[in-house]
Amino acid sequence: MAIITLLTDFGTDAEYVGVMKGVILTIHPRAAVVDISHAVEPQDVAHAAWLLESAWEYFPKGSIHTVVVDPGVGGERAIIAFRHHDHTFLAPDNGVLTPVLEKAGTETVVRVENPRYFLHPVSGTFHGRDIFAPVAAHLSAGLPVTRLGSRMGPGDLTRLALEKPCIDAQGQLIGSILTVDRFGNLITNVHLRDLEHHFSGVPRKRLDICIGDHRLGGLHARYGEVARGEALALIGSRGCIEVAVNCGSAARRLAVGRGDRVRIAFDAKPGMTC
Amino acid sequence: MAIITLLTDFGTDAEYVGVMKGVILTIHPRAAVVDISHAVEPQDVAHAAWLLESAWEYFPKGSIHTVVVDPGVGGERAIIAFRHHDHTFLAPDNGVLTPVLEKAGTETVVRVENPRYFLHPVSGTFHGRDIFAPVAAHLSAGLPVTRLGSRMGPGDLTRLALEKPCIDAQGQLIGSILTVDRFGNLITNVHLRDLEHHFSGVPRKRLDICIGDHRLGGLHARYGEVARGEALALIGSRGCIEVAVNCGSAARRLAVGRGDRVRIAFDAKPGMTC
Amino acid sequence: MAIITLLTDFGTDAEYVGVMKGVILTIHPRAAVVDISHAVEPQDVAHAAWLLESAWEYFPKGSIHTVVVDPGVGGERAIIAFRHHDHTFLAPDNGVLTPVLEKAGTETVVRVENPRYFLHPVSGTFHGRDIFAPVAAHLSAGLPVTRLGSRMGPGDLTRLALEKPCIDAQGQLIGSILTVDRFGNLITNVHLRDLEHHFSGVPRKRLDICIGDHRLGGLHARYGEVARGEALALIGSRGCIEVAVNCGSAARRLAVGRGDRVRIAFDAKPGMTC
Repeated sequence: MAIITLLTDFGTDAEYVGVMKGVILTIHPRAAVVDISHAVEPQDVAHAAWLLESAWEYFPKGSIHTVVVDPGVGGERAIIAFRHHDHTFLAPDNGVLTPVLEKAGTETVVRVENPRYFLHPVSGTFHGRDIFAPVAAHLSAGLPVTRLGSRMGPGDLTRLALEKPCIDAQGQLIGSILTVDRFGNLITNVHLRDLEHHFSGVPRKRLDICIGDHRLGGLHARYGEVARGEALALIGSRGCIEVAVNCGSAARRLAVGRGDRVRIAFDAKPGMTC
Repeated sequence: MAIITLLTDFGTDAEYVGVMKGVILTIHPRAAVVDISHAVEPQDVAHAAWLLESAWEYFPKGSIHTVVVDPGVGGERAIIAFRHHDHTFLAPDNGVLTPVLEKAGTETVVRVENPRYFLHPVSGTFHGRDIFAPVAAHLSAGLPVTRLGSRMGPGDLTRLALEKPCIDAQGQLIGSILTVDRFGNLITNVHLRDLEHHFSGVPRKRLDICIGDHRLGGLHARYGEVARGEALALIGSRGCIEVAVNCGSAARRLAVGRGDRVRIAFDAKPGMTC
Repeated sequence: MAIITLLTDFGTDAEYVGVMKGVILTIHPRAAVVDISHAVEPQDVAHAAWLLESAWEYFPKGSIHTVVVDPGVGGERAIIAFRHHDHTFLAPDNGVLTPVLEKAGTETVVRVENPRYFLHPVSGTFHGRDIFAPVAAHLSAGLPVTRLGSRMGPGDLTRLALEKPCIDAQGQLIGSILTVDRFGNLITNVHLRDLEHHFSGVPRKRLDICIGDHRLGGLHARYGEVARGEALALIGSRGCIEVAVNCGSAARRLAVGRGDRVRIAFDAKPGMTC
């Protein structure tokens, strides 16, 4: 069974997502469609990129990952498709696939342009229905990506400037909060491998993690290692540092949010300002 | 595979929609259920009618479209079912199927009254679970509509007075905003065929479209034809005039909303008040 | 076909629920996953218990009901599984299954501890992905519950103190509002069987039901028995007393909410304060 995942900024109030599923099932009645999220803020390409990166590897090989966060719909932007690790990715060429392309390379990226696999007439405003859904359905039914159009050169692809952690003059690792989840957990862009690279051999407990004015000490392994209502830092389920409050909301308790900085130092001296 | 679509005002916080799916799968384990929307405002029959009209034709033939926006649940209102273009429609007789019935005709509308296909006991408050879900499941498994009950006469059916565009004394076409979507796009009830009827032969670019105090000029083909942050009018994915802001929210920018008027004139003189 | 239901406090904005489905379909491609709700307030175990109790019996025999409302994730709390009436239940041992266990008994409850059925490495924060989803998938593919771990004694299980109605000194039955649904209906914990027990033989119309300062009279059979905009009490779809406003919101109209009391007396004298 072929799985199609959907990740859009359409919300679920309107009929848009349902219509995409109708189009898919009309073309390929045995496709299984799974929602990743439809709650991306309108046109927030960077957040969609990050959600996709967090999710795709947990789906079965053969899955078709379809991203429709597409501020340029109807305009000159290309639509692209490629395969990587037996998964297929389909999205506007606006950078939303940048994290996947960093791993996959660009040699097999195809510009989706063969109108044979589109719904006609193609509207100027809803390519989710008229292009993405039917193309995903055909891919899930076995169509090779190469039938969708011609190869694109690496220089033709749009890339997102992903915000990555850096080292400041004091040797601190500086990251930022990428998102706040429903629990109020603050999810940063500092990955475990950044820590291993910059603080190689340092026990996780001896790191000194600061967010806003709050000094959180070293990394914990789980929420319950601190008292209820206390803040802590740990490696979250995506492999990145998360700041949480045990049985509470770190966003509310610490009054920080998306875009705010997190700083990580090694074994700070007592009294070091943060 | 038989598809059942669901369109309700139940929201997805409570267990109501999940329970309907459980009932369906108990009766017909191979049914595929697709959500159109569960976010219709409580008892907003007109909006549900419009969502269904925008969606149903994109589903495979054989689909069962089940609408449970039902302020009269438990009371005297009938439940109706009929087939049209190889689709089946199932809903309370409160006007929610008016746009479909306008095309389908009323000769084959059946009153759903055969308790053999209901869950028992039938509650007074949740016919979604006790009538709509089991009946939809039986229909998806092949039950003919005519087994559900007797024919209804056209005079017995409840019809919604759908708000349609009209012509004013100055020859302007007057429509209204039916809904505002998640992107802030203003979706009107003025269909392309209304323009073709009233402004036959007029190039779309020479129309003069006004909404609130804002004069938008003629129709564009896609968002990107104006600068980021600029407003424009175009034909949206449902075939109706939409007012949008490129990469922004027309609702916020123009400060108009559902129910507000849109006026369309042909080739207005400069200085004409709007 | 095996059905897995999901009931979590994850919301649907993040990728968490989609990832759980990806993990399930990777292990068991033919599993059908149905959402009960993902909108439980973070860590609101009591509400999740109540939603599950309202829903599970409407699913087909063989269903796997998976609850991930889990404030203790990563800590010492057990994860439990058991079968009851040919349904399987899988949840943290935090009381969320208390209403089901009251019916099922505890003799066959298993502690989920066999790492063979987990995703590795098991994170400290997302057991939904690493334990619940893969275990549910294996169960839906036919794995016996007993293979997941050893039996737990009844004394080892965490139980929720479910708030139940009681009788006050005046012989009134005192219950409380468990939840307010999207329609503004006030759903109480007073079940029809409580009424039958305490007011045996009393006609439902002669009960005297009060909520806040509002006296609602006896039980009605459906919303339409009172005028539009009027409040009434009836037995809702879960078998409990609900207070509603016909075509309106009882929560707004009566200005009461979750946790507020409902009082039921028999044939109150006129003038009795409420």
